[in-house]
Amino acid sequence: MGVIDLNADLGEGDGPWRLEPAADDALLELVTSANVAAGYHGGDATTMALTCAAAVARGVAVGAHPSYDDRAGFGRRHVGVAPEVLRAQVAYQVGALVAVARSVGARVTHVKPHGALYNAVVHDEGQARAVVQAVLAVDPALTVLGLPGSRVLALAAAAGLATATEAFVDRGYRPDGTLVPRDRVGALVTDPDEAADRAVRMAVEGTVTAVDGAVVRLAPQSLCVHSDTPGAVAIATAVRAALAAAGVDVRPFGGA
Amino acid sequence: MGVIDLNADLGEGDGPWRLEPAADDALLELVTSANVAAGYHGGDATTMALTCAAAVARGVAVGAHPSYDDRAGFGRRHVGVAPEVLRAQVAYQVGALVAVARSVGARVTHVKPHGALYNAVVHDEGQARAVVQAVLAVDPALTVLGLPGSRVLALAAAAGLATATEAFVDRGYRPDGTLVPRDRVGALVTDPDEAADRAVRMAVEGTVTAVDGAVVRLAPQSLCVHSDTPGAVAIATAVRAALAAAGVDVRPFGGA
Amino acid sequence: MGVIDLNADLGEGDGPWRLEPAADDALLELVTSANVAAGYHGGDATTMALTCAAAVARGVAVGAHPSYDDRAGFGRRHVGVAPEVLRAQVAYQVGALVAVARSVGARVTHVKPHGALYNAVVHDEGQARAVVQAVLAVDPALTVLGLPGSRVLALAAAAGLATATEAFVDRGYRPDGTLVPRDRVGALVTDPDEAADRAVRMAVEGTVTAVDGAVVRLAPQSLCVHSDTPGAVAIATAVRAALAAAGVDVRPFGGA
Amino acid sequence: MGVIDLNADLGEGDGPWRLEPAADDALLELVTSANVAAGYHGGDATTMALTCAAAVARGVAVGAHPSYDDRAGFGRRHVGVAPEVLRAQVAYQVGALVAVARSVGARVTHVKPHGALYNAVVHDEGQARAVVQAVLAVDPALTVLGLPGSRVLALAAAAGLATATEAFVDRGYRPDGTLVPRDRVGALVTDPDEAADRAVRMAVEGTVTAVDGAVVRLAPQSLCVHSDTPGAVAIATAVRAALAAAGVDVRPFGGA
Repeated sequence: MGVIDLNADLGEGDGPWRLEPAADDALLELVTSANVAAGYHGGDATTMALTCAAAVARGVAVGAHPSYDDRAGFGRRHVGVAPEVLRAQVAYQVGALVAVARSVGARVTHVKPHGALYNAVVHDEGQARAVVQAVLAVDPALTVLGLPGSRVLALAAAAGLATATEAFVDRGYRPDGTLVPRDRVGALVTDPDEAADRAVRMAVEGTVTAVDGAVVRLAPQSLCVHSDTPGAVAIATAVRAALAAAGVDVRPFGGA
Repeated sequence: MGVIDLNADLGEGDGPWRLEPAADDALLELVTSANVAAGYHGGDATTMALTCAAAVARGVAVGAHPSYDDRAGFGRRHVGVAPEVLRAQVAYQVGALVAVARSVGARVTHVKPHGALYNAVVHDEGQARAVVQAVLAVDPALTVLGLPGSRVLALAAAAGLATATEAFVDRGYRPDGTLVPRDRVGALVTDPDEAADRAVRMAVEGTVTAVDGAVVRLAPQSLCVHSDTPGAVAIATAVRAALAAAGVDVRPFGGA
Repeated sequence: MGVIDLNADLGEGDGPWRLEPAADDALLELVTSANVAAGYHGGDATTMALTCAAAVARGVAVGAHPSYDDRAGFGRRHVGVAPEVLRAQVAYQVGALVAVARSVGARVTHVKPHGALYNAVVHDEGQARAVVQAVLAVDPALTVLGLPGSRVLALAAAAGLATATEAFVDRGYRPDGTLVPRDRVGALVTDPDEAADRAVRMAVEGTVTAVDGAVVRLAPQSLCVHSDTPGAVAIATAVRAALAAAGVDVRPFGGA
Repeated sequence: MGVIDLNADLGEGDGPWRLEPAADDALLELVTSANVAAGYHGGDATTMALTCAAAVARGVAVGAHPSYDDRAGFGRRHVGVAPEVLRAQVAYQVGALVAVARSVGARVTHVKPHGALYNAVVHDEGQARAVVQAVLAVDPALTVLGLPGSRVLALAAAAGLATATEAFVDRGYRPDGTLVPRDRVGALVTDPDEAADRAVRMAVEGTVTAVDGAVVRLAPQSLCVHSDTPGAVAIATAVRAALAAAGVDVRPFGGA
């Protein structure tokens, strides 16, 4: 009946500080891939080590979640940065996480850009290329996870990197497959049951119904549950249960 | 007539900020190994990339220079940290530098702890073990550079890591091979000619004359010139010239 | 039946990050003075503004809670710093908090050093003097809050500053009035009822029974409940109720 | 023959790190007002204290130079921030500098926003209002220094604050009195003699010739020399000498 990965962004605290609302522990029991903050928008060496160790103990795959250098804006602000600077910054973050993961017996399998960087590499050739170059420099065995149709995935594939696509169970879609912006009606799907229904259809049929009723083909290898909303755990719980009920095999996208 | 490496700590700025006095460019022309700050006591992704690129362009070997997490104290304060935290922090720094170096075509060949961490791993078993574990996690082909007789080198060797020892051309020694503390008479050697004489003897005979007149055997593979004193460039220039005049082959300690 | 202030350290988060466990909202309903983190060991401009606004809305007095410059160590590590540096750092923090408080209609009435700085100014003349000089520079109307008998209070009083003393409802005491170190038996009082009993006796009789049974005279103007333990809210609730039952008037120490 | 102030942005280092190129010492001998970085885009408590002390020793007036919270971008990136957040951030910075200045016997007399914030408050009502509210909260006796015609000056004046305007001796102007953007021809005036000629005309006649030959009336109270270009000292030297030769009295704009 199909196979799908379930991913969430985790480890976005810093030492004794937790990003509110703190849902890492609960989400680690529900997802199969964790995108771990790599020190810029969140995360420090200790939080990275603890998160990686907790993930590997649960069989959750570990990914690096690099960001623009903008902690004050939590990596969500579009900040201008030259491609060669971005390349160094992404290499820095991914390399740091790969090393910390190894130090606790975990292995980083994928890279998913965070926030404004995630959005930038959908269309921006120079920024996307910098990310791909950085991933190649760290480890050519890493998979790049991103939005279907984004430039970063095309460039990654052209460079010989594995790629994977994701869909968002808690976001509305436009007929062209892009997300409804957060300030528009229909941007968010907050009802756990509705999110679960969408998740099953994304996993089994590879489609989502857009805000105008059109059926959009996404065919994702992974489903993302945003971790920073109060209902994230309820949504992830409903999604996981619905996928199981539908006979979908939920496991890391790179898994054997 | 002997072979020796000449090393200095470099890349300790941050973006447009330079650690004063700024001597990186001049020292890169004189040394054969650069210990590059890895983001804690100094350094950011851009500075690391530029420093690594400048080093590789001159045939200078690149090492990682990890520190305690104490930027306000420039990594020179003895701050308590649990071994598992230190292991994650050293892995973070070395992993980040390895990745950034690769992204500009450079390769990290060694690790030299900085400041208070350098001193701690001379005697502290737990801190030394954490550093060794971190280095092993990042890359077992890395060489650990430290003080002759320090615990970190013994533990590194026992774990199968390559090791190298260094002597300081600009510091006074006590008869037991330890350094004269900075607040005592004889701590510093600031005369370039005297430093050069000592360098030659360290390289050719493997010895230094301690403050009490005793001859101490060090047999270092590398000589360190401290980069953060105004006379560093003059000292390094004199040392390099004297070694050449003495027929000593100056090259990276891990070099072919 | 007596008057006492009840204080806690608050606002130690940073933007969307909260110091775990997060108990600020609950404690603000229970205490009469809030020591607000001033940007070093915790706190940023936004958190400071929100905390000050929440305090003033509840009639809770606002104090500045400056720290050593050591965020990685949460201000709890003894780090060496020259008196003139400390003076500038304390002025920076207190001045910043005073200004942010004013921008939301609050007023800072006292200063209580945090963590390692709190401990240092009990005995260290130079560090204590630097704190007093900084407070004087910012506003001579500020009250300095500290441990009974500490040097900082003596120097503050000699300089014409108002002072206030505090006792800890959740810490064990030695017969000389100092605290039992955290790594010794009897260091912590975690039972809310026991803490409440001690609080009443501290407020009404001005005494505490030390670990050896001796009765120690403290005569504090304020009682501190540590905010960073899971039971802090339960302890503060029990203390507040017991003080009310004993007829003690709980209000800010500088209050009319 | 007229009176004018000469200002520069100083103190943008951090502890032992200096913003390159480092020209603070030389510029402090030439200007009459120093806009001191207040901890966000540059500056820390120690640097602020040393810069204020050096300024007051030379009779140079001290201003606060607050920025957006964006150290990685040196405060030059336009980053979105809510007005109430900006108000707290500006209060934080100005309050911190006022306090540090007092701790070394200096007094802050004005506030000049930095970088992207400087540009934002020329036109953005909400951002400008937040700055004015913050300045009022810290000290209603502070003068706001900005671009002629900017919103922040109008709002400041309406709120009862003193204001002052500045012109840039090293930048090209458009006929409407705005600056030629940095990426256009004519943006920079790098020849010291030309800058000096413009400075004299700005001070004596209150005008500048725009890139299209039009004469623009600016009537500034202060002239700014940018401190972060290699030729800044040469330009400031030529400007100061030319003003003296023209009989212009160079002194702080708020001076008696």
